[in-house]
Amino acid sequence: MASSSFFLWLLLFAVALAAVESIPVFVPGAYKSSLLKKQVKSAKPEIPYEAHYFPQVLDHFTFRPRSYKIFYQKYLMNSQYWHEGAPIFVYTGNEGDIEWFAANTGFMLDIAPKFRALLVFIEHRFYGESLPFHKKDLNSAKTLGYLSSQQALADYAVLIRSLKRNLSSEASPVVVFGGSYGGMLAAWFRLKYPHVAIGALASSAPILQFDDITPWSSFYDAVSQDFKEASLNCYEVIKGAWTELDAFGKRKDGLEKLSKMFRACKKLSSVDYARNWLWSAFTYTAMVNYPMEANFMKHLPAYPVEEMCKIIDGHSPRATKLSRAVAAASLYYNYSKTEKCFKLEDEDNDHGLQGWNWQACTEMVMPMTCSNGSMFPPSPYSYKEFADDCSRQFGVWPREHWITTEFGGMRINLVLKRFGSNIIFSNGMQDPWSRGGVLKNISSSIVALVTQKGAHHVDFRSATNKDPEWLIDQRRQEVEIIQKWLQEYYADSKQD
Amino acid sequence: MASSSFFLWLLLFAVALAAVESIPVFVPGAYKSSLLKKQVKSAKPEIPYEAHYFPQVLDHFTFRPRSYKIFYQKYLMNSQYWHEGAPIFVYTGNEGDIEWFAANTGFMLDIAPKFRALLVFIEHRFYGESLPFHKKDLNSAKTLGYLSSQQALADYAVLIRSLKRNLSSEASPVVVFGGSYGGMLAAWFRLKYPHVAIGALASSAPILQFDDITPWSSFYDAVSQDFKEASLNCYEVIKGAWTELDAFGKRKDGLEKLSKMFRACKKLSSVDYARNWLWSAFTYTAMVNYPMEANFMKHLPAYPVEEMCKIIDGHSPRATKLSRAVAAASLYYNYSKTEKCFKLEDEDNDHGLQGWNWQACTEMVMPMTCSNGSMFPPSPYSYKEFADDCSRQFGVWPREHWITTEFGGMRINLVLKRFGSNIIFSNGMQDPWSRGGVLKNISSSIVALVTQKGAHHVDFRSATNKDPEWLIDQRRQEVEIIQKWLQEYYADSKQD
Repeated sequence: MASSSFFLWLLLFAVALAAVESIPVFVPGAYKSSLLKKQVKSAKPEIPYEAHYFPQVLDHFTFRPRSYKIFYQKYLMNSQYWHEGAPIFVYTGNEGDIEWFAANTGFMLDIAPKFRALLVFIEHRFYGESLPFHKKDLNSAKTLGYLSSQQALADYAVLIRSLKRNLSSEASPVVVFGGSYGGMLAAWFRLKYPHVAIGALASSAPILQFDDITPWSSFYDAVSQDFKEASLNCYEVIKGAWTELDAFGKRKDGLEKLSKMFRACKKLSSVDYARNWLWSAFTYTAMVNYPMEANFMKHLPAYPVEEMCKIIDGHSPRATKLSRAVAAASLYYNYSKTEKCFKLEDEDNDHGLQGWNWQACTEMVMPMTCSNGSMFPPSPYSYKEFADDCSRQFGVWPREHWITTEFGGMRINLVLKRFGSNIIFSNGMQDPWSRGGVLKNISSSIVALVTQKGAHHVDFRSATNKDPEWLIDQRRQEVEIIQKWLQEYYADSKQD
Repeated sequence: MASSSFFLWLLLFAVALAAVESIPVFVPGAYKSSLLKKQVKSAKPEIPYEAHYFPQVLDHFTFRPRSYKIFYQKYLMNSQYWHEGAPIFVYTGNEGDIEWFAANTGFMLDIAPKFRALLVFIEHRFYGESLPFHKKDLNSAKTLGYLSSQQALADYAVLIRSLKRNLSSEASPVVVFGGSYGGMLAAWFRLKYPHVAIGALASSAPILQFDDITPWSSFYDAVSQDFKEASLNCYEVIKGAWTELDAFGKRKDGLEKLSKMFRACKKLSSVDYARNWLWSAFTYTAMVNYPMEANFMKHLPAYPVEEMCKIIDGHSPRATKLSRAVAAASLYYNYSKTEKCFKLEDEDNDHGLQGWNWQACTEMVMPMTCSNGSMFPPSPYSYKEFADDCSRQFGVWPREHWITTEFGGMRINLVLKRFGSNIIFSNGMQDPWSRGGVLKNISSSIVALVTQKGAHHVDFRSATNKDPEWLIDQRRQEVEIIQKWLQEYYADSKQD
């Protein structure tokens, strides 16, 4: 599954936990994991990469006998443009199969010839094939405990160092790329391992989504804003749909009626599944509100938010708000018109999903709420309730302030200004995650590239002949900045 | 025991392991640990600090149920000069009781009034009272495995953040100080946690002593250089003493004779103890070749290397080299003339010592050799042999390249130049550890303050009326640079 979708599970999960009455506890996304498998299978043949497996240490930061356990970390390589000494572009994998990220980061492949760059996509531990334990043992904190962002960063440092040695190319400059959670990893990697990577391009990386750096309601306010901008009526219909949905929950025949209305493959056992199905559709669509037809999360037309709103606005005003919202959401799940019914309750237990829920319940604590002005049901955030649920689910507590302690929080801009360098934060304002991103230049070498019409790491997608000017321009700036980093690196090396 | 002595055990240990025939495997230092207890007891009443205990997490980088175990980390505080918002000076404790470092870092107390600084000395996990497990359980890799530099750095970040919150002084700038291994931690802390500390003063921090960044023979060459500079004859006598010592080992009555010559309290069971006793005396004395009488490692006169050489040069040339070397070494162990005999084999099992040996056998792998030009018996270095011994002792292998992967290696200067800021590396060239330190300015804000006559973090000692001009000047520069960091921080904060 794509980065953002895992990412989203977190927030749905969090909001779900917070809104005790209006949104009961549920973990959405299961139906997506089966879909993921289909997508990945079809994506695999398209990507020109060779798979390798690196013997990686289980725990870099302790030296217990168990810490020395070796697992095999998958990485993909393309060396067709590369020669010794030329740059190495590394994608710092996020929460899913690495093929999927490679397939959706065509940008790196597009620019590789220009830089004669070696391309390396490293899979994140505990995702895809890079599992330190057997799948059946991955449901306990004893094993999942080794899944953390810091361990992942250390994996990347160790693998890159070894790779460079094996290629006899220790002087090759490394630039890291990452999108979404992978973008956070890329930016953090540059901060923690400046001796390994000379720069980072972090696309749609909400590194400020922690603690109370960014207002908690901003994510869902941004989703709502996308729909409001497309059509005020559309926004109002969706906003009104939730009450109608809840009313069904109170009726005896409510679930039966809902199952029909949602074209569920089997009768719904709870209103929660319906709510989540809608919620995911609107949120994901806002994230991937790309200016071109694309197949990242799902196959979708260009500007899918507008398309959804056209559906809503095109319906008779006498139709219920809920039925119109369902029609709009169906675009997300069935643009290709291949689905006869929807699996709203498909409970596949995919460990990719499990992995992200684990990360959300331990370190990736991103508080989110729905404000009264959003198109979602208002919901507060309570760390206590969130933590209680995590404890029930995994037997451990979230470390609420850990990420900001480890990577910086409230005053991170000030710190980066004096201390950091060579990071591009690219964001598109259509993407609700942009609200937790770095949206202003911090210094001459820590730069924010923001597009008003961009969505979730759209700059990382392969160039198409339908790309708008602003996107071409954003990518051009990224290439220029990376060129500058490389020039500086080679100049410094000569002086040394 | 003081930082440097633990530090030294590593290198003796390493050299001992390497020199298979000439220096059999031995772990020196046991007799020092009992001495340490005496020293610490006498030091305690002198330091104006209050002890506190912070509930610290066992493992910051994994989320296993065990990781959440809490232990109590000791820290010392002095707030007599401080007011809210004023700077916080933190000593990043190294491998021993924190009182000992506080007592030997009078510099921080000396400058606190000028800065109205809060002083905090944090004890390193697994040393002193900051033991995550009961002492009796500290002899296994399962428990010791949680002792690592990265965990220690995270401890400091978590504790400082919590302390600032509790003091309602979140905007107070933090400057970290550290000497020897503590200096490495201070510099690394600034690199990894620039959002927590605005700058670091790293005194005698051999951050380049890893891998093959610094020539492996440079440490013992530097010890030898100190003695050679004091007197060529002195150097030659010591250089010749080892063969005489070995000859005793081959004689039937050799150990008896040696025991008498060394004034051992009980008959020696091996020549190794005698060799180590001499070796330690010369090496430690070079390290603490201070320009004033001091009591850091031991009570010693000003310029103790010169004093040792005076003893050697003053002896009749007809006396054996070994007897003259023993007379010189006795200055180190008995300057105060309180010892009637020497405990060369005292085998107290002190966990402070155990802790450093553990760190040396896991991450702090600093290869060292003795060259033909040194005054010590030539000895090579073999990672394999070192690793085999560590494996026998602890059941785990040293991670040979981990420190340079995590903190930077060969090209660290280049990286710091572009990326780092606000670190002072202070070194004295009398100190053999200086050879693994940063001895040249890296940029306008990463500065090397080097004195030709300085020894192991002499700048950190309390000012005395016997301080030479160069030492006064070094400290003055340190104060000025820290002032500049603080001014910049306050200026940045206003703009924010």
